[in-house]
Amino acid sequence: MALIVQKYGGTSVVNAERIKAVAARIIRRLETGDRLVVVVSAMGDTTDDLIALAGQMTDDPHPRELDLLLSTGEIVSSTLLSMALNRMGCPALALSGAQAGIRTDTRHGKARISGLDPARIRRELGAGKVVIVAGFQGITEEMDITTLGRGASDTTAVALAATLKAERAEIYTDVEGIYTADPRIVADAHKFAEISYEEMLELASYGAQVMHGRAVELGAVYRVPIYVASSFSDAPGTLIHGGPFMEQHNKVLGIAQDMDVARITIRGVPDQPGIAATLFEPLGEGGISVDTIVQNASVERLTDLTFTVSRGDLSRALEIVKPVAAQIQAPEVLADTHLAKVSIVGAGMTSATGYAGRMFRTLFEAGINIELITTSEIRITCLIDEMQVKDAVRALHKAFALEEG
Amino acid sequence: MALIVQKYGGTSVVNAERIKAVAARIIRRLETGDRLVVVVSAMGDTTDDLIALAGQMTDDPHPRELDLLLSTGEIVSSTLLSMALNRMGCPALALSGAQAGIRTDTRHGKARISGLDPARIRRELGAGKVVIVAGFQGITEEMDITTLGRGASDTTAVALAATLKAERAEIYTDVEGIYTADPRIVADAHKFAEISYEEMLELASYGAQVMHGRAVELGAVYRVPIYVASSFSDAPGTLIHGGPFMEQHNKVLGIAQDMDVARITIRGVPDQPGIAATLFEPLGEGGISVDTIVQNASVERLTDLTFTVSRGDLSRALEIVKPVAAQIQAPEVLADTHLAKVSIVGAGMTSATGYAGRMFRTLFEAGINIELITTSEIRITCLIDEMQVKDAVRALHKAFALEEG
Repeated sequence: MALIVQKYGGTSVVNAERIKAVAARIIRRLETGDRLVVVVSAMGDTTDDLIALAGQMTDDPHPRELDLLLSTGEIVSSTLLSMALNRMGCPALALSGAQAGIRTDTRHGKARISGLDPARIRRELGAGKVVIVAGFQGITEEMDITTLGRGASDTTAVALAATLKAERAEIYTDVEGIYTADPRIVADAHKFAEISYEEMLELASYGAQVMHGRAVELGAVYRVPIYVASSFSDAPGTLIHGGPFMEQHNKVLGIAQDMDVARITIRGVPDQPGIAATLFEPLGEGGISVDTIVQNASVERLTDLTFTVSRGDLSRALEIVKPVAAQIQAPEVLADTHLAKVSIVGAGMTSATGYAGRMFRTLFEAGINIELITTSEIRITCLIDEMQVKDAVRALHKAFALEEG
Repeated sequence: MALIVQKYGGTSVVNAERIKAVAARIIRRLETGDRLVVVVSAMGDTTDDLIALAGQMTDDPHPRELDLLLSTGEIVSSTLLSMALNRMGCPALALSGAQAGIRTDTRHGKARISGLDPARIRRELGAGKVVIVAGFQGITEEMDITTLGRGASDTTAVALAATLKAERAEIYTDVEGIYTADPRIVADAHKFAEISYEEMLELASYGAQVMHGRAVELGAVYRVPIYVASSFSDAPGTLIHGGPFMEQHNKVLGIAQDMDVARITIRGVPDQPGIAATLFEPLGEGGISVDTIVQNASVERLTDLTFTVSRGDLSRALEIVKPVAAQIQAPEVLADTHLAKVSIVGAGMTSATGYAGRMFRTLFEAGINIELITTSEIRITCLIDEMQVKDAVRALHKAFALEEG
């Protein structure tokens, strides 16, 4: 008689047949006595289609209007799932993010959940209904609709699980769990039965697309166990939780890649205190996440500053950076969108110096040029040509013997 | 410097090009100094497409879920129009029905507006923005999304015009105004420069699809002048207002047809007081509009009771009627969806007996069988085979010399 929050991704609700299959899964699960809150993403490529529709109107849609537009995708899929369940004799009800009580700040396109009033959900659960919640969206105090960022239906699910004190959040997707590398790229990638929040977070942050990083963070903070599995099979998935630890046959846990990378380089930045703040503060205020900042060695008190942003943020980032660059008399701002990140992730990476060397040698031997390197406690990331990502992932997976599991 | 509420129908916002054309029209209009609130319908066939999607889930979607689904159509079109306007340098903002403060009762699928809080609209107008409102929808006290019925974006526009004390509501559509008959059927149909609410109401109620009847009612009650014109041209349209009256070259004002008709016949109803109430009260409680009720002459204290409903209500109407019929021992309930209504509309119809006779003769000479006849003060309606509607409209338009205008 546990309360469970499930989430079904876009590929799991891509068409009428799949939505009915999800409804049938939900009904089988109810037979175990569990009560369910179900978060859904938009059907298949709906979000991209809506973005393309907006693109026919303007190159630069106002984020408030874009959010209101995009929020319709999850409302469509959630109402259809509710209809399918009711048709099968299972009382169900769909709620928009606003109706589900999901309050957010006003950062359109990447809003953060600021509060969650579960009164309506509790009432409907109490009436014996399966509550379907449109993922990815919320509402501000001003009654404006926000979205939480791409992939953030996972975040909706974990936030609901935390607030409702659910036993766990279950993320159903088109892969069977968390692997040492993307199984669509590496045929013999190994599936984890369990993994820690911290390890999952590194894999997710550095591009393991299975789960949204913020959802994992939220799970870690509120200690919500997260189970990731396929909606297309009954194969066992991966449980993300807080310990006790874990399979560590190898210090390299997995390989992650991220294609959503744009690089900005500011040439000839004066090498003075405060310059980095001058550049990065306006980006932060603009709500643009910057990662992988690299400042090259100073030559004649001038340096090159390179950083990456997501491709969707590139044009706004350039708008912010260019006037600042002009102001500090940096002569040139370069942008590049044909790069991707590949990372090796695991505990104690940088303390064991051999890993970096093996990574660089492996890429070199695969004929892959490294554009930029960054490291953290538990990962090493190389920026490479996006065309070579699959080769890089396969070569690294083999080099670190991850197929052995 | 008047405040105007405009409404653009589905054909006016059918694709990106049309939405941009509407945006350009709006900007030209702003140059006159008017301030605008703009109500939009869903793009083209979006509502039908969403209904078809629901139909893939269930034959009988729960009205609450269906409303939440359908409400997305107008949100998409309103955000796209807002984006197009902002792109052209015109500050604009899209609001869902809920955000626009449109409160309704809980009769899903045919909700009535119960209140309208224009605070947000006033604030955005005050900030110099064009306010785009998603038509056709509202929100209940329980925060459930409702829709107001097919074509009800007109009602949204007139309700907003009444509340905001706008100078008038302008309904832009794919025809150039109100005609003596559907100009797609009758080539020489005559366009009215002006028409009274009452006459327009009869034309709309009996199938002139140009405007939603409830919108006209609301305009009449709150004395909001309504201008109907084409969004595809600058041709002058028709002004619907309260008088002084009006062009009446002929007592027959126009011909209307309505394909959205289903007929239910209950055979062998006991001819007793109270039977009609027993039958029709449950339909009213079920929110089903019944019109054209005919009770045949009684034979041996048994009578046949025939009435029409909209086709979308047929299955629910039968669900309600069949047990009642069984209870009063009526042996048979028949349903027919292949019929349509054709009406002649005008002031003083029934007092001038010649009109009914001319109508019936005209249909007879055109080889059209009349299934059922009803009359009111200002119209005569015949139920005929839906395949013969165009022939009937053309023959009647000619018989009453409406092309002379």
